[in-house]
Amino acid sequence: MTDKDFREKLKKINQIEIKNDTDIVGLITSLKDTGFNAKRLALACEIYNEMNKNPNCIKFFGLAGALVPAGMQKVIIDFIKEGYIDILVTTGANLTHDIAEALGYHHLQGDIESKEIDDKYLHNEQINRIYDVFMPNKVYEGIEDFVSQLEIPDIQMSVSSFLRFLGDQLPEDSNSILRLCSKKQIPIFCPAFTDSGLALQLGFHHQKLNLNHFADMLEMVNLAWDAKVAGVCIVGGGVPKNFIMQSLQFSPNSATYAIQITMDRPEPGGLSGATLREAISWGKINEMAKYSTLISDATIALPIILWFLKKTNNKKS
Amino acid sequence: MTDKDFREKLKKINQIEIKNDTDIVGLITSLKDTGFNAKRLALACEIYNEMNKNPNCIKFFGLAGALVPAGMQKVIIDFIKEGYIDILVTTGANLTHDIAEALGYHHLQGDIESKEIDDKYLHNEQINRIYDVFMPNKVYEGIEDFVSQLEIPDIQMSVSSFLRFLGDQLPEDSNSILRLCSKKQIPIFCPAFTDSGLALQLGFHHQKLNLNHFADMLEMVNLAWDAKVAGVCIVGGGVPKNFIMQSLQFSPNSATYAIQITMDRPEPGGLSGATLREAISWGKINEMAKYSTLISDATIALPIILWFLKKTNNKKS
Amino acid sequence: MTDKDFREKLKKINQIEIKNDTDIVGLITSLKDTGFNAKRLALACEIYNEMNKNPNCIKFFGLAGALVPAGMQKVIIDFIKEGYIDILVTTGANLTHDIAEALGYHHLQGDIESKEIDDKYLHNEQINRIYDVFMPNKVYEGIEDFVSQLEIPDIQMSVSSFLRFLGDQLPEDSNSILRLCSKKQIPIFCPAFTDSGLALQLGFHHQKLNLNHFADMLEMVNLAWDAKVAGVCIVGGGVPKNFIMQSLQFSPNSATYAIQITMDRPEPGGLSGATLREAISWGKINEMAKYSTLISDATIALPIILWFLKKTNNKKS
Amino acid sequence: MTDKDFREKLKKINQIEIKNDTDIVGLITSLKDTGFNAKRLALACEIYNEMNKNPNCIKFFGLAGALVPAGMQKVIIDFIKEGYIDILVTTGANLTHDIAEALGYHHLQGDIESKEIDDKYLHNEQINRIYDVFMPNKVYEGIEDFVSQLEIPDIQMSVSSFLRFLGDQLPEDSNSILRLCSKKQIPIFCPAFTDSGLALQLGFHHQKLNLNHFADMLEMVNLAWDAKVAGVCIVGGGVPKNFIMQSLQFSPNSATYAIQITMDRPEPGGLSGATLREAISWGKINEMAKYSTLISDATIALPIILWFLKKTNNKKS
Repeated sequence: MTDKDFREKLKKINQIEIKNDTDIVGLITSLKDTGFNAKRLALACEIYNEMNKNPNCIKFFGLAGALVPAGMQKVIIDFIKEGYIDILVTTGANLTHDIAEALGYHHLQGDIESKEIDDKYLHNEQINRIYDVFMPNKVYEGIEDFVSQLEIPDIQMSVSSFLRFLGDQLPEDSNSILRLCSKKQIPIFCPAFTDSGLALQLGFHHQKLNLNHFADMLEMVNLAWDAKVAGVCIVGGGVPKNFIMQSLQFSPNSATYAIQITMDRPEPGGLSGATLREAISWGKINEMAKYSTLISDATIALPIILWFLKKTNNKKS
Repeated sequence: MTDKDFREKLKKINQIEIKNDTDIVGLITSLKDTGFNAKRLALACEIYNEMNKNPNCIKFFGLAGALVPAGMQKVIIDFIKEGYIDILVTTGANLTHDIAEALGYHHLQGDIESKEIDDKYLHNEQINRIYDVFMPNKVYEGIEDFVSQLEIPDIQMSVSSFLRFLGDQLPEDSNSILRLCSKKQIPIFCPAFTDSGLALQLGFHHQKLNLNHFADMLEMVNLAWDAKVAGVCIVGGGVPKNFIMQSLQFSPNSATYAIQITMDRPEPGGLSGATLREAISWGKINEMAKYSTLISDATIALPIILWFLKKTNNKKS
Repeated sequence: MTDKDFREKLKKINQIEIKNDTDIVGLITSLKDTGFNAKRLALACEIYNEMNKNPNCIKFFGLAGALVPAGMQKVIIDFIKEGYIDILVTTGANLTHDIAEALGYHHLQGDIESKEIDDKYLHNEQINRIYDVFMPNKVYEGIEDFVSQLEIPDIQMSVSSFLRFLGDQLPEDSNSILRLCSKKQIPIFCPAFTDSGLALQLGFHHQKLNLNHFADMLEMVNLAWDAKVAGVCIVGGGVPKNFIMQSLQFSPNSATYAIQITMDRPEPGGLSGATLREAISWGKINEMAKYSTLISDATIALPIILWFLKKTNNKKS
Repeated sequence: MTDKDFREKLKKINQIEIKNDTDIVGLITSLKDTGFNAKRLALACEIYNEMNKNPNCIKFFGLAGALVPAGMQKVIIDFIKEGYIDILVTTGANLTHDIAEALGYHHLQGDIESKEIDDKYLHNEQINRIYDVFMPNKVYEGIEDFVSQLEIPDIQMSVSSFLRFLGDQLPEDSNSILRLCSKKQIPIFCPAFTDSGLALQLGFHHQKLNLNHFADMLEMVNLAWDAKVAGVCIVGGGVPKNFIMQSLQFSPNSATYAIQITMDRPEPGGLSGATLREAISWGKINEMAKYSTLISDATIALPIILWFLKKTNNKKS
């Protein structure tokens, strides 16, 4: 590229305008011409939309962080309902909180800004804190009741098979990511399943349980191997990010689309803060991929991306 | 408060839903029942709306960070046009970039994600980088031309008086925060004015200039003193945050409403990352104030807040 | 506490002095009288020292993040050699990198500051990037050779039993966390073991492997249950943090000492950024515990803490 | 560079060892062979040492953030005493806190980790909070007494001239950055001087004061212009960073050495989080410069760098 080419190729930053009739599609479209994380949010929307439109694209969704406690359960449910997720990888914590909601329990709003949080007081009140969200400890009793009555068909089934079984046991019309995935046959992987309150209750009541984690690992590699086109959306990073990425690394087709929403930073070298570009060196994302590493709280970014995707799809129909 | 009271007062987290007919007011209203920064964004919108509705409230707006280069100039302009800002405190950098746009220059989009940025190459191309936004160095020539021809009425005027004069010199219909503030007689304070490319050009061409910074400081204290009700919106922190806050600290009425949008963190003790609650100890924010410290890139949060405010106002009319 | 009591109890910040004969113990001691993260570093050193001196204290060490690639392998080895770790919980990635070093491979220094990193170029050179550390892809070949020849005694053993077996297979005098833990019979837990290159190679070559993750989970609960006094040092957060904490939550004695070193922030609600105080609400840390949440890159904090602990111990002898 | 050259040039990461006789010079030397921020800390030490050894190098030191309240006043004093700073640029806040200490007042240690901070209570106790450091409000009375009695020789002197005068008025043997700079004739610049409690008190008692900020700006440009070799150490960013950098931008010799210690991040586009490499595009740092952008709390990094520099110098003598 000559210097002249370089200069001529540079696009102008547009000073965006919020008009009275602005809708979410218009806003996001205008943000594409800005800088910093506004641009990255717009790119994330655009890339997700391309993933959805590509009939060959298998969409891997990695979900870490306390999204269900923060009120984002139905947002995730909508991603699944609308067909925006083909394979879900998540943490045991999110499953635990999802089942709590499915069983009729609720998370509560704490006020960490204008009041001092007294964690000793909360402990005495048997309330567990997740930043500014509270979860009454009695939730565990409900999960224990649910879990203790399970008749597990095969103590050596894979975690993802067990999660499909578990979803089937939840109340018919409950709000639940797990329940919906079972119904829609969307596989859920949870590589660190034993790192959760749900697994602890399972282990206490079903002492011989030995879910086959290696079977999940190999199945995930096969799913990645079979994907003609792979798209990735990473929320928060952690084990779900790595589990998706390591499967793509050993596949012929690494990711062609990738989105990451994180508040961690890259310099200390942890995977959750690593940029998506770094993944190209590993062959996890391919050299021609479109990607956007968005630095934002997922509780702000995810509803906006969902809103954009739903609105864009409805426009077309 | 008894323990029973505490438990009964806790509100449920609502799992939000994005429906086909969701509008920005609906989205923000639903986010009020969530956690983490989604809730804080909703609170910021609600608090700003209350500021606007309170006829006695003087709205102080502190603007740090490269918002104009990132495409947020018209967003700020709209805040002013709509009457959401009574007093603006900003950095010399934002004024420099605002004048660049007013004089017809543009900022450019860099791609820092998918290409390697070669800063030596940019230097040779005479392009200055602000993360992923580029500013051609020739912008300074235009500013120099503008500045060198100024006939400054009083070399010892205050910075804010000078900025009003400067806004009057800009082209009639130019897009400019400075120009609009001059027209609408909104005072702009810039305590670190000499820390900017604009001031450097002024100093080179008007060597006797001695703008009276102390006059600004005392005027700002008077404005804070006179405010029956004070509301504050801080973007990014820095000198604009402290300058507003120190004026309120020595006033009978500290802030009753406060919003801060920042990506800095509190633990290292810097003011830009300090929570708004900390300001209560200083008497900068009053004990009964409503406030929200929002951890978000301002390029995402500001357009959303503006959109919410405009939509809310239009609904009522 | 009366107001007078409150005021009189406040300690003076000391302006620290670095003298010619300052040693690490003197520096840390003086930092105790400062603020921000300097104080927290000093508290972390002091708390770890108390853990070491308490003969009843079981020291749980959670290790996430790419510490081995960054050159901290021997620092961890020294923590184990000196008896500062009783139970190690870590990630599959750290084990993969540890085995790579044990087998004679090395990680390499990248220069991300002064050169542009071209991840496509690295990909073509078969070099994987971890921020500014490079790992040649051929490392995987060595791990594959090592792993393919293993004669695994029991395909349903727990992960920690398998890791003890694995450590025994490494070369006698190799530098290795895994090898040393096997020798010293320090249990290593790795709840997300299948989320690693090591496990992938194992799975490819030993297709029937079904390491019993639930056995690890229950064993860890027993270890936490049996600890008369529990001390915790968390590096980076992630699954290792939660796995230690969930075991303590269901034990009669939650942690009495706790240290966390992280660069993540608390507001987005993820566990890696959560403060240690939050863990009191859950009953993971007890109400009278001493704890320090240190916001620092672990590659800076860990060597300093080790240095302090070794120097303090040598002084006493 | 050929691919073979690239691979051969890569240096091995060394797994560092903390030995019984490790001293700070040995530690830092070994950290040079690591990754992440440990390496950057080592580079910062090495670069500062080179600045000190280069007799032509003018060392600009930008100091933002509440370093004096946090107990780092004597660390800064030592940097000046040892000749490691030629020109100091700082904030009004640091000067205010420095004078408070010089007049015999003290900052106090708050405990924000294990107790809930009640900012309303602090407000009633007239204690101002800076994260976990407290400053009694009565400090302002002492500063007011000091300031009200000043006989200012010239109400239109530059800020730096005024600060030299002010340092001369402080008690002879007081601990003070300001006092020491006056004695040693080290210029102090404070571009946002009116953004401080000190300036407010000055303005209230000396209503005609009109310190010439433009004179400082032009003098700083001259100092930068005259520097044959320029070295920069930036603590925290803010106005001090930009003020130094803008002067170097318009000089024939931009910085040859540069260090930045910050906890802010680059993606939101603010200057405090911007990497040093970005400054090359602007011509603020030259293309052949050595630099290190260190992500660390300055209260940890600064004492270590000072310790390294003093020990290195003493060894040589």
